[in-house]
Amino acid sequence: MTTPLAARIAREYGTPVAVIDMDKVERNIARVQKACDEAGVANRPHIKTHKSPMLAKMQIAAGARGITCQKIGEAEVMAEAGIDNILISYNLLGEEKMARLGALQSKAHMTVAADNPTVVASLTQAAAASGRPLSVVVECDTGRKRAGVETPAEAIALARKIADSKGLVFAGFMLYPTETGWVEAQKFYDEALAGVRAHGLDATMVSTGGSPNLKNLGKLKGATEHRPGTYIYNDRMQVGAGVASWDDCALNIYSTVVSRAGADRGILDAGSKTLTSDTGGGLDGHGLILEHPEARIAKFAEEHGFLDLARSNTRPEVGDVVRIVPNHVCVVVNMMDEVVMVRGEEIVGLLPVAARGKLR
Amino acid sequence: MTTPLAARIAREYGTPVAVIDMDKVERNIARVQKACDEAGVANRPHIKTHKSPMLAKMQIAAGARGITCQKIGEAEVMAEAGIDNILISYNLLGEEKMARLGALQSKAHMTVAADNPTVVASLTQAAAASGRPLSVVVECDTGRKRAGVETPAEAIALARKIADSKGLVFAGFMLYPTETGWVEAQKFYDEALAGVRAHGLDATMVSTGGSPNLKNLGKLKGATEHRPGTYIYNDRMQVGAGVASWDDCALNIYSTVVSRAGADRGILDAGSKTLTSDTGGGLDGHGLILEHPEARIAKFAEEHGFLDLARSNTRPEVGDVVRIVPNHVCVVVNMMDEVVMVRGEEIVGLLPVAARGKLR
Repeated sequence: MTTPLAARIAREYGTPVAVIDMDKVERNIARVQKACDEAGVANRPHIKTHKSPMLAKMQIAAGARGITCQKIGEAEVMAEAGIDNILISYNLLGEEKMARLGALQSKAHMTVAADNPTVVASLTQAAAASGRPLSVVVECDTGRKRAGVETPAEAIALARKIADSKGLVFAGFMLYPTETGWVEAQKFYDEALAGVRAHGLDATMVSTGGSPNLKNLGKLKGATEHRPGTYIYNDRMQVGAGVASWDDCALNIYSTVVSRAGADRGILDAGSKTLTSDTGGGLDGHGLILEHPEARIAKFAEEHGFLDLARSNTRPEVGDVVRIVPNHVCVVVNMMDEVVMVRGEEIVGLLPVAARGKLR
Repeated sequence: MTTPLAARIAREYGTPVAVIDMDKVERNIARVQKACDEAGVANRPHIKTHKSPMLAKMQIAAGARGITCQKIGEAEVMAEAGIDNILISYNLLGEEKMARLGALQSKAHMTVAADNPTVVASLTQAAAASGRPLSVVVECDTGRKRAGVETPAEAIALARKIADSKGLVFAGFMLYPTETGWVEAQKFYDEALAGVRAHGLDATMVSTGGSPNLKNLGKLKGATEHRPGTYIYNDRMQVGAGVASWDDCALNIYSTVVSRAGADRGILDAGSKTLTSDTGGGLDGHGLILEHPEARIAKFAEEHGFLDLARSNTRPEVGDVVRIVPNHVCVVVNMMDEVVMVRGEEIVGLLPVAARGKLR
């Protein structure tokens, strides 16, 4: 079964293709902004999910304070489009990146993160190049074991080093608590804050992260802002985390069934080069097919999605166009040069994924 | 430890970045062409790995008969660059794709695959649009359970349907045997060939696939050509399959260590948006770090590679640039708009990944 809209999109653009429903996008933007407002925490959406200046500006127009980027190349695209309040939530270092960061500072109010002295030393080069002070937050690890200093004592020492570095301003702390780690995060933050205050510093930016953490908005006493990304589109992971419904999933991959060589199996024209091999933290199958929710996207070749239809009462035919909710939408959008915008049953047009592939 | 070349590349281009050694690329091209020549099988390299017309032309100049593409968008890029013998080894169907395939036929000698009558019926539209006959091979499943008719009887019936379809020419068979499935593949092919011959048809193209199958070159009696892809760059999977050495791995991801928050761990600036979550069929870790072969790339966030250094005698420092052999190079190249070319220690320049992101 192919919906009339899917048939039209396949005819106009071909498959596989990402389709976003702008009504849902706007609803997602408004809902999370309202939640931030009610929690008294500013919203600083992470644009890694959509990589689109147009959508970032919609988020800001709805009330977001600024945006978050993970890569300097993403920030360049956003600054070029006129967005002027940008946090790069990442350790940046090296000559090439510092020249670019310095140039970015002349276009936008930039804040960057650091978790070690080597990065802090490097950041002074960007500040020197721009001639403007650069705001730096200390990234704190509160259980995720990714980046981030591991103890409040290290956080305090790094904050002091930032404050003592020519051209750098200590701006505060960046945390990304695990879903169950907010008590520890509070303890870490309180101790780090007391420590920097004892040295005459203060934290004006205290930033927490993650769309799954939207259910914990405001839980960190002292947080000034939150960095949710995925909420603009949502996906199977967000539904699994209990922060979105299926109806909130604004992006679908439209894919054609190209083979049905066996009764219990089929092949989609979307493989790992479209949906990626990201399991979304161990979800069963590689996406939910709206027309055939019992079908399992069992595995991938690069351009083949292997459909296991053993448990399906209804089975697609060759030529059917199906709609898939991906496991992890952020990495899927990153595969596309553009997405198709719709409103309900109406095709609006193409939206470029302008910061796609900005790996560096 | 950062090699002098890695330091120069990081300074000039930033990290993470893909770097290909053209000396190794040329050696890989020559070696596999020689193997095909010796086996008496034409080489039709799959460009899904490099997605570059320049490299495709080098493969043809070395003796390849033509190229293989998986997507019509890839074929468009290659035909635009002047390559005129293209197999799209994929079931194509639908109005939008048939218009494009018809247009492609005016630029290049096209052959496409089919495994079902719906696809064959659709292909007649492309032939009608172009006014030129379109060559079609029957894709046969010989154990992989991907696309492909499951029995010789189906193959024969589909071949006859192709031959009976206005504008289509039955060209032969396409197979992709599993590494251990060549006896079954031979049986399947012999029976299918006898069947089509009994109906006055013949197979002029008999195509086998896969770089791991290079060790089985010529094993299928009657094969006219082979479609290896990955051999131009190689990766951990190919080394694991016994068809390449580490020294044959022509592409490395250069990545900077950006965090060392714990003694036993570190963070690379290459995550799943660079190296992808493809495990390469279940390899341990997400790549081999040449400078620290005992280090394990344990998991990914989108822009973070989590380094487990517990078993490492030597541990990188923040700022070190390391070279990574990816698990599966084809999906990694697909993340990049360009790769840096080097020859030994010399930087040659940037090569665009021209057909990157051609999902459709």
